[in-house]
Amino acid sequence: MDRRSFLKNTALGGTAAAAASTLAAPAYAQGKRTLTLVTTWGRGLAGVHDSAQRCADTITAMTDGALTVDLKAAGELVGAFEVFDAVTAGQADMYHGADYYFVGQHPGYAFFTAVPFGMTAQELANWYYHDGGQELHDELGQIFGLKSFLGGNTGAQAGGWFAKEINGPEDFQGLKFRMPGLGGQALGKMGASVQNLPGSEVYQALASGAIDGTEWIGPWADEKAGFQEITKIYYTAGFHEPGAGLSLATNREVFESLSPAHQKVIEIAAAESHQWNLAQFLTNNGAALQRLQSGGVTVREFPDSVWDAMGDAARATLDENMGDDLFKRIHDSAMASMRSSSNWLTRSEGAYRTQRDRVLG
Amino acid sequence: MDRRSFLKNTALGGTAAAAASTLAAPAYAQGKRTLTLVTTWGRGLAGVHDSAQRCADTITAMTDGALTVDLKAAGELVGAFEVFDAVTAGQADMYHGADYYFVGQHPGYAFFTAVPFGMTAQELANWYYHDGGQELHDELGQIFGLKSFLGGNTGAQAGGWFAKEINGPEDFQGLKFRMPGLGGQALGKMGASVQNLPGSEVYQALASGAIDGTEWIGPWADEKAGFQEITKIYYTAGFHEPGAGLSLATNREVFESLSPAHQKVIEIAAAESHQWNLAQFLTNNGAALQRLQSGGVTVREFPDSVWDAMGDAARATLDENMGDDLFKRIHDSAMASMRSSSNWLTRSEGAYRTQRDRVLG
Repeated sequence: MDRRSFLKNTALGGTAAAAASTLAAPAYAQGKRTLTLVTTWGRGLAGVHDSAQRCADTITAMTDGALTVDLKAAGELVGAFEVFDAVTAGQADMYHGADYYFVGQHPGYAFFTAVPFGMTAQELANWYYHDGGQELHDELGQIFGLKSFLGGNTGAQAGGWFAKEINGPEDFQGLKFRMPGLGGQALGKMGASVQNLPGSEVYQALASGAIDGTEWIGPWADEKAGFQEITKIYYTAGFHEPGAGLSLATNREVFESLSPAHQKVIEIAAAESHQWNLAQFLTNNGAALQRLQSGGVTVREFPDSVWDAMGDAARATLDENMGDDLFKRIHDSAMASMRSSSNWLTRSEGAYRTQRDRVLG
Repeated sequence: MDRRSFLKNTALGGTAAAAASTLAAPAYAQGKRTLTLVTTWGRGLAGVHDSAQRCADTITAMTDGALTVDLKAAGELVGAFEVFDAVTAGQADMYHGADYYFVGQHPGYAFFTAVPFGMTAQELANWYYHDGGQELHDELGQIFGLKSFLGGNTGAQAGGWFAKEINGPEDFQGLKFRMPGLGGQALGKMGASVQNLPGSEVYQALASGAIDGTEWIGPWADEKAGFQEITKIYYTAGFHEPGAGLSLATNREVFESLSPAHQKVIEIAAAESHQWNLAQFLTNNGAALQRLQSGGVTVREFPDSVWDAMGDAARATLDENMGDDLFKRIHDSAMASMRSSSNWLTRSEGAYRTQRDRVLG
């Protein structure tokens, strides 16, 4: 679908401009302005809530409260998946969330979180900050009345927990597996029976055998969820979310009403949170993986034949959206940047780390 | 050497406290305070100067000039290698530079740039922001009256340009090679004749055969230097600087005189510059590597036997400093964090990128 038909066919496209002109007057008290930040995360959810809180606290601290960000977790003001519409309509000033939740608004949003066989966190940062990514995020934001920034990152998500070892692509035939988003669509093309269970039901479903496996986030979050109590078979590398970015988005009219200094504060706070949060996930994942391995979990890697099938399925899934002009331009920009970044990264620090870890033993 | 004997044996250790109490009154004009930032970089030097300028501009912009950072490039106020002493003594308020230039002040500073066989940029960020690194940087800063932050990163530096192919460690015997720092010391242990030429003389030395090879930074900077005009043999992965961090350091008394909001502005601006600059180097390196390869440069990788010898030499170089208690504590903290981070990174995004690039072809 192209942008024109997209806008024509959604209530949101038609009402966004109208909503922007009827924003509530901003809340001021003693020269301080409060911005309401709604999130897609349950309060306290490790890592992801932390990055939203980091953005809020940093903005408030750097402005000495002249901008005070009031964080409302999922359900406290609006539901997790309602944050996009709430900010577009001016009901809240900002949201923090994973933009691939909003592929219904525009499929191009997937690239600002992760797409199957897409960018790692570093490749995403390269593209976003220096190779056209931010500008394309802005172009999406113009449609919906948003000004968005990357504001967190989980790093590469794990391949997941399986009741049985995977020896070839045929093992996905009929496999009941929990995986949301475009990754799940791709897995469906491989013959899996993809289950989209609410997070709260996944542990019980895996324990009872209602599902044969699940992806979650990575060792830190997976260990908290307790999947190691059910199966010891853990695939650490996955194809579905190789570096999931999180976004901090501001209602564009609100953003433009701020001083240039305060606009810069929001931009820099979000970018700092992207780095801080990625390092937080990776540090905690490293420690958690050591504990899981000590506890008897065996880490495995899919055979080449499975990666080949995943690549075909990912390609087919992305291709389904290529009729939309903006999606295609975002795709082409991201993939060109990724290949260029990866060529250097693989030959420099990739080759280095392989050799270093071999030599250090 | 331990910290006590280190302090006793340097003029700096003895004078830092005295200097801190005789700081010039800060410059104020119309409620604005100007902070002088001296750097180890020539004005306009691609990437490294950019990250210093990024820090300066971001601090100024986020405070609407209430803190105005006035950048003085190398030689404009003090020489490149004089910035540490200038800020310690209160002659300037801040410096931006590579802290491994200051191993003469304390060898522990090497870890906040890079050590041979040490951390990649992401591993450095993990350690620094979430696994004890910042706290150890603070401990060094307490000795010298500094408050330091990471404020830039070049990413993994290339192995370098060679007149002849390297087939084994014996090829380093008598090789006249330009490499500064601890990496150069390690290369010396492998039998190389290590040359520490000023940057401005390296091209001519390589062209004339006065040296047999040189490392520089990475494809972006190397291409600007023009080494591809002299030899086509380029080793992309190196052991000596796997992710070189750059620091923004503030005179501690100046830092403590600032409001909590302005302290936070400096902290966050530096951290954002670390991410922004790393992405800048990697993006430009990717594009430059493509151009170099198109121009006939062949990229190579050292054989395992060379990496083994580099590992031994790096180990021996680090061991020479282990008598210093603080150096040893920084070393042990960094290496433990690196191993934990790397275990996850290798098994997740490392395995993913290898498979993705194989499948995409």
